[in-house]
Amino acid sequence: MKKSFGPRTLVYPVPVWAVGTYDKEGRPDVAAVAWGGVCCSIPPCVTISLRKATLTYANIMERKAFSINVPSAGLFKEVDYFGLVSGREQDKLCRAGLKAVRCRIADAPYIDEFPLVLECRLLQALEIGLHTAFIGEILDVLADEDVIGEQGFPEMNKIKPVLYSPELHDYYETGALLGKAFQSGKDILQK
Amino acid sequence: MKKSFGPRTLVYPVPVWAVGTYDKEGRPDVAAVAWGGVCCSIPPCVTISLRKATLTYANIMERKAFSINVPSAGLFKEVDYFGLVSGREQDKLCRAGLKAVRCRIADAPYIDEFPLVLECRLLQALEIGLHTAFIGEILDVLADEDVIGEQGFPEMNKIKPVLYSPELHDYYETGALLGKAFQSGKDILQK
Repeated sequence: MKKSFGPRTLVYPVPVWAVGTYDKEGRPDVAAVAWGGVCCSIPPCVTISLRKATLTYANIMERKAFSINVPSAGLFKEVDYFGLVSGREQDKLCRAGLKAVRCRIADAPYIDEFPLVLECRLLQALEIGLHTAFIGEILDVLADEDVIGEQGFPEMNKIKPVLYSPELHDYYETGALLGKAFQSGKDILQK
Repeated sequence: MKKSFGPRTLVYPVPVWAVGTYDKEGRPDVAAVAWGGVCCSIPPCVTISLRKATLTYANIMERKAFSINVPSAGLFKEVDYFGLVSGREQDKLCRAGLKAVRCRIADAPYIDEFPLVLECRLLQALEIGLHTAFIGEILDVLADEDVIGEQGFPEMNKIKPVLYSPELHDYYETGALLGKAFQSGKDILQK
């Protein structure tokens, strides 16, 4: 018998990403985002949700572009800080001692110290309620050499991305390899 | 200097969820989904993306409802199997030895063996490209007693949800607690 918790955003796993944007004057800003995920394979798209009151909302509307910066576990305090204050009050990258670099394609900055970066251009803004979902087309994926594995791609266990726990407000690390996708279930398929 | 990987859905962390639906005749089906995330706090909403060719796409369009079933790590083979075959070919829940239970509110089934369940009603279907994003309002959250922690909520480290690694097609476990959100970054805020 399952216990009911009512209507709330209580689900796992949820990512922790830093979203990079430029404001009207070209100043770089970053925001912490946990409401987001991949939303299409062709074209490759990702969605992030933001409140209208945020600087990042205004910047994406202005520039039609953003970056998604995936922190390694060692950067969780920096991303938490990004969620504690608005870029209208503090130069967050400067205060956190991080370096903004202009994306190669998207009109947005990325954070040099973050091991995995998605350059995105805004495809669509969908108003849902308190949050607006921004659908971004992934124009390029950038990764540091030291997180690239033997198969030539950045690996989850080298990046060690951060998970967010809604309601309880905890951050978690990612864990051990469980098995291969599109293979692990073959025994059930064929039984 | 970051290496470029081109436009692709290569980002971490990404969830592994099982989506439960009824077809026109009321038969329960489940699909594996990795493209999804929370997308709004008020009303609480979650988005999942599906290809038009899938039975789940047809079922959600018909019933305007679905459940999200969060597997514990021990269920990763079952969820992988859900992604290997269509419900048009096999009764997946039956073959996997899992029990479908009617949701209390949403017109959808949930999987009894999965520790965390979201009951959702369809708010909006947004065609993006190969995938359509379904925005679901979370009507209720259900959880097993044994994953509920001292603070009265289901905990990530008791559920042990599964992560998907796009491109490399691996499943990962979730890992250890890193720290508290909205607290860990206060040193940077105040320095």
